[in-house]
Amino acid sequence: MRGLLPCLLGALVGITVAVPAGARTANIPAGHAASVDPRIGSGGDGHTFPGATVPFGMIQLSPDTAMPDVKHAYKWAAGYQYADTSIMGFSHTHFSGSGHSDLGDVLVMPIAGDVKLEPGDPGKPGSGYRSRFSHDSEVVQAGYYAVTLSDYGVRAELTAGRRIGWHRYTFPAGKPAHVLLDLRPSIYDYAGKVAWASLRVHEDGTVTGCRTTRGWAPGRELCFAMRFSQSMTSRELLNREADIAYKGFKGPGNQAEDSDAQNGRALVGVFDFGKLKRPLEVKVAISPVNEANAIANLDQDGSGWDFDARRAEAKAAWDRALAVIDIDAPTTTRTLFYTALYHAMLSPTLSMDVNGDYRGPDHAVHRAKDFEFYSTWSLWDVYRAQQPLMVLLNPGRSTDFIRSLIAAQQASPFGILPVWAYQGLETWCMIGYHAVPVIADAYIKGVRGFDADAAMRAMVASATYAPYGDLADYMKLGYVPIDKEPEGASKTLEYAYDDWSLAQMAKAMGKHDVAATFVKRATNWRNAWDPQTGFMRARLSDGKFREPFNPEAAGYGSDYTEGNAWQYSWYVPQDVAGLIRAMGGDAKFIAKLDALFDAKVDASHFKNVEDITGLIGWYAHGNEPSHHIAYLYDYAGAPWKTQERLKQIMDTQYAARPDGMAGNDDLGQMSAWYVFSALGFYPVTPASDEYAIGRPFVAKAAIHLGNARTFTVSASPLDDAHPYVGAVTLNGKPLERTYLHHTEILAGGELHFSMQAEPNRDWGKSDVTRPAAMSRYGQ
Amino acid sequence: MRGLLPCLLGALVGITVAVPAGARTANIPAGHAASVDPRIGSGGDGHTFPGATVPFGMIQLSPDTAMPDVKHAYKWAAGYQYADTSIMGFSHTHFSGSGHSDLGDVLVMPIAGDVKLEPGDPGKPGSGYRSRFSHDSEVVQAGYYAVTLSDYGVRAELTAGRRIGWHRYTFPAGKPAHVLLDLRPSIYDYAGKVAWASLRVHEDGTVTGCRTTRGWAPGRELCFAMRFSQSMTSRELLNREADIAYKGFKGPGNQAEDSDAQNGRALVGVFDFGKLKRPLEVKVAISPVNEANAIANLDQDGSGWDFDARRAEAKAAWDRALAVIDIDAPTTTRTLFYTALYHAMLSPTLSMDVNGDYRGPDHAVHRAKDFEFYSTWSLWDVYRAQQPLMVLLNPGRSTDFIRSLIAAQQASPFGILPVWAYQGLETWCMIGYHAVPVIADAYIKGVRGFDADAAMRAMVASATYAPYGDLADYMKLGYVPIDKEPEGASKTLEYAYDDWSLAQMAKAMGKHDVAATFVKRATNWRNAWDPQTGFMRARLSDGKFREPFNPEAAGYGSDYTEGNAWQYSWYVPQDVAGLIRAMGGDAKFIAKLDALFDAKVDASHFKNVEDITGLIGWYAHGNEPSHHIAYLYDYAGAPWKTQERLKQIMDTQYAARPDGMAGNDDLGQMSAWYVFSALGFYPVTPASDEYAIGRPFVAKAAIHLGNARTFTVSASPLDDAHPYVGAVTLNGKPLERTYLHHTEILAGGELHFSMQAEPNRDWGKSDVTRPAAMSRYGQ
Repeated sequence: MRGLLPCLLGALVGITVAVPAGARTANIPAGHAASVDPRIGSGGDGHTFPGATVPFGMIQLSPDTAMPDVKHAYKWAAGYQYADTSIMGFSHTHFSGSGHSDLGDVLVMPIAGDVKLEPGDPGKPGSGYRSRFSHDSEVVQAGYYAVTLSDYGVRAELTAGRRIGWHRYTFPAGKPAHVLLDLRPSIYDYAGKVAWASLRVHEDGTVTGCRTTRGWAPGRELCFAMRFSQSMTSRELLNREADIAYKGFKGPGNQAEDSDAQNGRALVGVFDFGKLKRPLEVKVAISPVNEANAIANLDQDGSGWDFDARRAEAKAAWDRALAVIDIDAPTTTRTLFYTALYHAMLSPTLSMDVNGDYRGPDHAVHRAKDFEFYSTWSLWDVYRAQQPLMVLLNPGRSTDFIRSLIAAQQASPFGILPVWAYQGLETWCMIGYHAVPVIADAYIKGVRGFDADAAMRAMVASATYAPYGDLADYMKLGYVPIDKEPEGASKTLEYAYDDWSLAQMAKAMGKHDVAATFVKRATNWRNAWDPQTGFMRARLSDGKFREPFNPEAAGYGSDYTEGNAWQYSWYVPQDVAGLIRAMGGDAKFIAKLDALFDAKVDASHFKNVEDITGLIGWYAHGNEPSHHIAYLYDYAGAPWKTQERLKQIMDTQYAARPDGMAGNDDLGQMSAWYVFSALGFYPVTPASDEYAIGRPFVAKAAIHLGNARTFTVSASPLDDAHPYVGAVTLNGKPLERTYLHHTEILAGGELHFSMQAEPNRDWGKSDVTRPAAMSRYGQ
Repeated sequence: MRGLLPCLLGALVGITVAVPAGARTANIPAGHAASVDPRIGSGGDGHTFPGATVPFGMIQLSPDTAMPDVKHAYKWAAGYQYADTSIMGFSHTHFSGSGHSDLGDVLVMPIAGDVKLEPGDPGKPGSGYRSRFSHDSEVVQAGYYAVTLSDYGVRAELTAGRRIGWHRYTFPAGKPAHVLLDLRPSIYDYAGKVAWASLRVHEDGTVTGCRTTRGWAPGRELCFAMRFSQSMTSRELLNREADIAYKGFKGPGNQAEDSDAQNGRALVGVFDFGKLKRPLEVKVAISPVNEANAIANLDQDGSGWDFDARRAEAKAAWDRALAVIDIDAPTTTRTLFYTALYHAMLSPTLSMDVNGDYRGPDHAVHRAKDFEFYSTWSLWDVYRAQQPLMVLLNPGRSTDFIRSLIAAQQASPFGILPVWAYQGLETWCMIGYHAVPVIADAYIKGVRGFDADAAMRAMVASATYAPYGDLADYMKLGYVPIDKEPEGASKTLEYAYDDWSLAQMAKAMGKHDVAATFVKRATNWRNAWDPQTGFMRARLSDGKFREPFNPEAAGYGSDYTEGNAWQYSWYVPQDVAGLIRAMGGDAKFIAKLDALFDAKVDASHFKNVEDITGLIGWYAHGNEPSHHIAYLYDYAGAPWKTQERLKQIMDTQYAARPDGMAGNDDLGQMSAWYVFSALGFYPVTPASDEYAIGRPFVAKAAIHLGNARTFTVSASPLDDAHPYVGAVTLNGKPLERTYLHHTEILAGGELHFSMQAEPNRDWGKSDVTRPAAMSRYGQ
């Protein structure tokens, strides 16, 4: 696969700077944003969106090629698939790289000429308002997206502020210009997903509305406010529902089709502008609270009409955010690296209006005092590397993230921290209580500015809330019985790690009773370990392992979550040393790791299980349970094997093309893995202060820390002929161990890797130089 | 029909004080509340509810016998029909006497023994959770309702506070007690009316929830909070929707049927209490805003558990409210009078939480400062007599009513005053802009405490909002053209009166320009007058009357609103003198009035037009366009004929039995007509300071005014043998005119009627003694 890359990449990089004739280009100063290619992941299983957004922004304004019903939606989790040939519109909210999905709110489509009211069939051009497009016409940059809608000859450009999506539409001369607003479609759509919607045109031409959807977070209300840079000449607000009772009651004088306001489940607005002499700009602010807040967001964050200035601001926001790391690398690697860093800064997202209002998991409106409320928490994914990366690069922002988690817990009807939340609401998706390691990791690494006692209360409440994922039995039996709760093996393992992370923070806070309780719970991984088969397995309530057992079996209701025994049996990040002993020592552990990576697995093995992709043997880089595994060789004294596996993964799982991601980016977790691994270290055990050392994939990287120090990683010679680490120095002194303390990074300095052609089998071999040192509590 | 009354009434009055064995009775001091029989109007076309409420209260907690779909719902507009034999539950919101309807929120049903989850078929006992009942077991009083649910042997008692419904359920010994909460049914229900609902049990056992319905006011959200006096032993929260995508995502750990929280469109909660030793009390507060406010309403207005005390408070509230008039009358008349006064105090209703939050017609939440926000505005009905009655009896409350109207206008997306609003939201039902005469009437009669300039701005905005009911053409042509807008004749007539009322207030405020504009518009009634046929008719845009013309025709889309030419041709309350001249003078006018009342009309004539009931000839007392007509003889110098017609109406249209109302009470308008007419005068032209004098139907009535004065009306001899007014004195001096100034009432004193067997054809005959004097502007 690799051989194809250079030519493909050349083409890609060319496109990101080539602006088709007719499109305006702002004079944007250079910066790392120019190295970002948001198309990466927008094809295949990446599920990222190519549209415009700013770091952690509330708005993700992006083209949607399809919003199929729930049974066919997996592929279109971000609304856009690179292989598609038509665009149905531009909506304002998207997840970046999720498996399950939602959003696609406030879909806007510019139309020149006759207006069709249904999106139409992608297979039948002209059957609806959707338009064909060519990738040749696309400009896809950090904070900017442009495309020519060829059915209409409309040039569409998008950029974004924190709470505002900005559109600029250049209509062909002589044709009547319209903007269609469709409040019906949703990502992961199905008939009836819209529970209720309203739409209104104010006297000053501002369009506002709200809709409540019964999607992933049921009963989610999203409101918006939209303004146009030129006056509309007429408009029509329609409810496209089939004839229903009460439909007639809606506007002054009971007008059946009203031009000022509409209610219903299938609202469409058509705004007419006649023949335009200059491009039409449109700005749309959203609010999770109400229309008045959406208007306030529009007023405060979005005065005037200067699309080019807004575009320059969005790029500048990315340049500032990405300036946290300077790398020395060839263009392809730069593209991969900065695109990964970009993707790692798309969650959580701002979910708060300019007045501080946010919606909590109780669906009520709360007001943030002295912090910003963020949501979009794919915690099962991001606690592993994406949130630790933010702790390293963005500790100030982490403070707000953690305050947001605590605020969400305080507004939770169940008194527990978020599991998979967005726009403040909970979905209960995936397993574990991984907000706990996010908070503990930040605390252990020195992030402050939040109420640690309140955090600890929230963490303990989450760890002991019996109805959640059968924590009741877990607390009683020391494991999650599979006859009571599906995926009991995975849950037992992940709870045990979460327990350990809680204990670390409790210990650091001097709460030794709490620490003792949870350190004890952290050993529960042993209850899943079956020495007979050599795999982690699920037990029944009576203590016996569930039979029959097949280490290759996966799927919902199995012993494991999105995985099988091969993949999950490595999940003891809090006590890898203990796991090695359980598995029979270093040699057997290494042999089993090799067996994992080198297994011959039919690519169709997981065809009925979403999310398990990016296979190398049984190792599935496309899904999170595998993410720490390549680093585990370090723990068995064989870091050169970690180095080998990392190269294998880097070479096969990331490519600078739309389908270049091996699996869902999962709100930046796949990308954060890339960033850490490219830098040469990885947080195998968040909530410890240690990183396992791999090997760099960039010749030089300068990390500009929040404390104004710089930590530099360098490697030489860095090429395919020298894939192994010969020696490492930290600030010029030899580093014998294969792990790094967070404090060592914070101190600034230089970590240098001398690379060589052959493995150094001695470095990091002895017990005391291995990263397992950090978790000796388990011995 | 009259002959039957005495025996029927004896039975009725007996029931209101007879308490079945087993029901507890509080020791409630006597007062006028004891004379109220809320069953009146709960059968036939009255559409009142028998349940518990307090004056202008937010809660109307009442039994529901059926909530049929929208096509069959007219009869059950209040949820209860006296002829029914089973009760499906007790819900917390009801309109009193509406034609169209909605509400029936938060339906609660006590169940002993096995629980069924569907209400079942009224025709098949035992087919669902509904229970049979007997009227013998009912106790129906102002502020209190009790019934025995015979299928369960449960004694159910209800009382109400301003924002809280109180239930007390006495379960049979030895049977498991349950309370079922059904968030599916609605009055005027149909599949899909519930757009979204949520339900949650808090740790302290408080149950909260919200639902959004797409009913008469589309997108109406109502939340509630409910507590029980004893702890539940278990509970189940269900979503009874057919299998749908996402249904599984709802509670911690993705439990399919969760016991802590539910979302969906078909929610049912079952709360179990085991075998109870003492009665279970339940309290439910509602909020139009959110659950937190509902809890606050529950906390602030409803501490502790003392049903009897709450019942005594509700009765005391009614005693206080009804003490405004003391009458001297036989029992049957007392019952009719105080029940009418009670019914006249059920709208508008409080629509504001304890913290001042209310929802406006923009669906947004606003906060009231220094006033209470009221909604439930059936303005086409209540501007005629119910609101003028409140101005007379309750001027302090009128101040809040008017501030509420102004606040609603200020929050209106269209900038206009309410038309038919409830819970802050607009339905656009019926015609005219009759909030204007409500405000003008109050202002002319001295009500203050509101911003008159803001009121005037709101009134002018409403009178000139072109899209409303074709005001555009009305302002251009001087009439509403029937080819543009249905019911053009009625709209022209009602706009012209509203115009006049606006002018009166403008004049009083010294805004002579405004007054001049609207006095001119007020003459537009002449554009509906067809001298050829002698009827009010609708014109086409070209100025011609629409043909063919049939003065008997009625129905939607006809020239008239809920009426025909016979009924609408009298609608010039602002210039009856002008109308008399148009009709050819006193004699012809009187002859035409006689023809109206004496016409032979087949009872089935209006069978396809709802609301036209209570026929005397073409006169339809059951609907509002007729309400002023009997008083019009006064204006032609024949008050003795007014006296005759009033007796005819009183004798046939009001009876102290469940089906004793001739038509929908229409939020107290029918009842207010009764109260005024029983007192001997009526506000034919609200926004003037004059009342047309009829004749009293009580021997003595003392009106205790807000200014601490008392105005007494007396009549002697008062019996069937002396139906005519011989002479009238005001404070002992002869009153020659047949109208009374509001200031004369406010001054206190006594209005005495000497009744006689034969008409006095001289009293009130001369021009200057007629009430038309007040509208000479039109000459």
